[in-house]
Amino acid sequence: MDDRFLRACRLEPVDRTPVWFMRQAGRYLPEYRALREGRDVLALCRSPELAVEATLQPLRRMPLDAAILFSDIMVPVAEMGADVRIEPGAGPFVREPVRAPADVGRLRPLEPEADVPHVLDAIRLLRKELSVPLIGFAGAPFTLASYLVEGGPSRNHERTKALMHGDEATWGALMRLLGDATAAYLRAQVEAGAQAVQVFDSWVGALDPEDYRRFVLPTMRRVFGSLAGLGVPAIHFGVGTGELLALLREAGAGVIGVDWRGPLDVAWDRVGSDVAVQGNLDPAVCLAPWEAVRAKALGVLDRAAGRPGHVFNLGHGVLPGTPPETMERLVDLVHERTVR
Amino acid sequence: MDDRFLRACRLEPVDRTPVWFMRQAGRYLPEYRALREGRDVLALCRSPELAVEATLQPLRRMPLDAAILFSDIMVPVAEMGADVRIEPGAGPFVREPVRAPADVGRLRPLEPEADVPHVLDAIRLLRKELSVPLIGFAGAPFTLASYLVEGGPSRNHERTKALMHGDEATWGALMRLLGDATAAYLRAQVEAGAQAVQVFDSWVGALDPEDYRRFVLPTMRRVFGSLAGLGVPAIHFGVGTGELLALLREAGAGVIGVDWRGPLDVAWDRVGSDVAVQGNLDPAVCLAPWEAVRAKALGVLDRAAGRPGHVFNLGHGVLPGTPPETMERLVDLVHERTVR
Repeated sequence: MDDRFLRACRLEPVDRTPVWFMRQAGRYLPEYRALREGRDVLALCRSPELAVEATLQPLRRMPLDAAILFSDIMVPVAEMGADVRIEPGAGPFVREPVRAPADVGRLRPLEPEADVPHVLDAIRLLRKELSVPLIGFAGAPFTLASYLVEGGPSRNHERTKALMHGDEATWGALMRLLGDATAAYLRAQVEAGAQAVQVFDSWVGALDPEDYRRFVLPTMRRVFGSLAGLGVPAIHFGVGTGELLALLREAGAGVIGVDWRGPLDVAWDRVGSDVAVQGNLDPAVCLAPWEAVRAKALGVLDRAAGRPGHVFNLGHGVLPGTPPETMERLVDLVHERTVR
Repeated sequence: MDDRFLRACRLEPVDRTPVWFMRQAGRYLPEYRALREGRDVLALCRSPELAVEATLQPLRRMPLDAAILFSDIMVPVAEMGADVRIEPGAGPFVREPVRAPADVGRLRPLEPEADVPHVLDAIRLLRKELSVPLIGFAGAPFTLASYLVEGGPSRNHERTKALMHGDEATWGALMRLLGDATAAYLRAQVEAGAQAVQVFDSWVGALDPEDYRRFVLPTMRRVFGSLAGLGVPAIHFGVGTGELLALLREAGAGVIGVDWRGPLDVAWDRVGSDVAVQGNLDPAVCLAPWEAVRAKALGVLDRAAGRPGHVFNLGHGVLPGTPPETMERLVDLVHERTVR
């Protein structure tokens, strides 16, 4: 098996820099759009066969070094009792937002084998098909909480922040519930066969370090602590986390995923050279002509050159308008330019 | 006149830390909502009397140390030929986005006295009413270009980045045009009586430092350079600019406005202690109970304590759901806690 992804996560020597892309199975692929046609995203996630198909699509096009389970971060909270719908192009919406203790009480703890058997089945099926490692994933408690509290995507996360600052007990109860669910969900994915996990705290960069330390870090330490004995790499990813990197490191994952805003070597210095880093090409640049993409990608590789522990990725998910050919060429470029 | 705002901008000693709020005239005020009722934002901006009224509303409630002209960053581009509409709660939309050389050609250079006389009239009227300094403002070329190229608000600015990377000549022509317009617009505002100016590059934090240096910095240097001889402080503000602060300093403004993501003293160290800083309370926190707001505000003041050159502000505009009483108490808190 191609294990350079797992080796890089563990800071071990690799023959080439491994590369995969967040949302590599997504709307930029015509075959994914065909699979989605007329189907709800959550329905797609709930069918093991369709989730397997979506997961495999990008791997048929390009020699990616890891697969990531096709799913949505809202899948477990939907099974915990939240009334979630995913609007194409807009994101998740929650019908009755969580803003008071009783709203937290409406959510049940997650029991993965009973609540998300389709996810675990998809993982078991994928392991039979794949020749590269399979990454399981979950949304992080803050990001899940933001959708639950705001009721949908939010630019400012103001209701979430008002809740954490205004009703710390309710916030704490929500984070405990989501932290337990996230940990149980990831453990179940690993037991089903996932060989690494990524936790998406996509919107946590909206917090300042003080609030992160007080309202989020304890839960993240528990999540990563509960994964520590499983022997699989854990990746901790967020957008706009430049000022939080030292705290993300404290959370305990072995790999920190960073966005494109800071140069990769600067980010790596902030998290420490004893953890691996994943990133960090600007996904928006991938809509530009190839020569521009190439130049920016080489810049990322330059900043990681000579250090073990770099997993090449974008700084966020592949955008819908991206030409698939660009992503294919990018995989080849990374492999060609990093032969050890 | 209360000139502690201007003194702080110039790093001179002040009797108390000055305070004003971005979007202090805005939807969180019931009297503003009444003024807006049934009126288009651009229509409001085009009426000197109504713009004066909106500008003055927050000053009747609280002893702010500066007024900021009520207007919208899209006002000048609308007069340059872009078909702009502002959708309440959503932002500016542009009917025919700028994506090719001919689209840039459709925009005329701005002639402030002919194109935006209402703005200059509002400034002249305000100077007769005000006992605190009046801040003029403009959108920065990158942020204006993003609206023009994307056609509306954007999370990823992908078309903007594709244009800058894919057609540097067109990007350069657009930035020159917008840079000239921004500089002319601000100069005219100062000539009409504005005692300071703020340039809002709200979304420039979406760029990495390399792209900022290449595609934006030269224009910003020209803009601030053209203001240098006017003898008024210039404030340069953006959101999510933690990794760009050293470059914002190079752009040349004497005051750098920062968001809440980084601690104020950390941001100040990055821009240098010989420039003033403005910020940086998280606006979303202002929706929480007063005790939480108070604690966070005192944290900001602590990080600026003992240094000249701090203008207290939020890290972005006042959010619509903010209780006006919170902002009133905040002004008093800043003044009470910073008596020299």
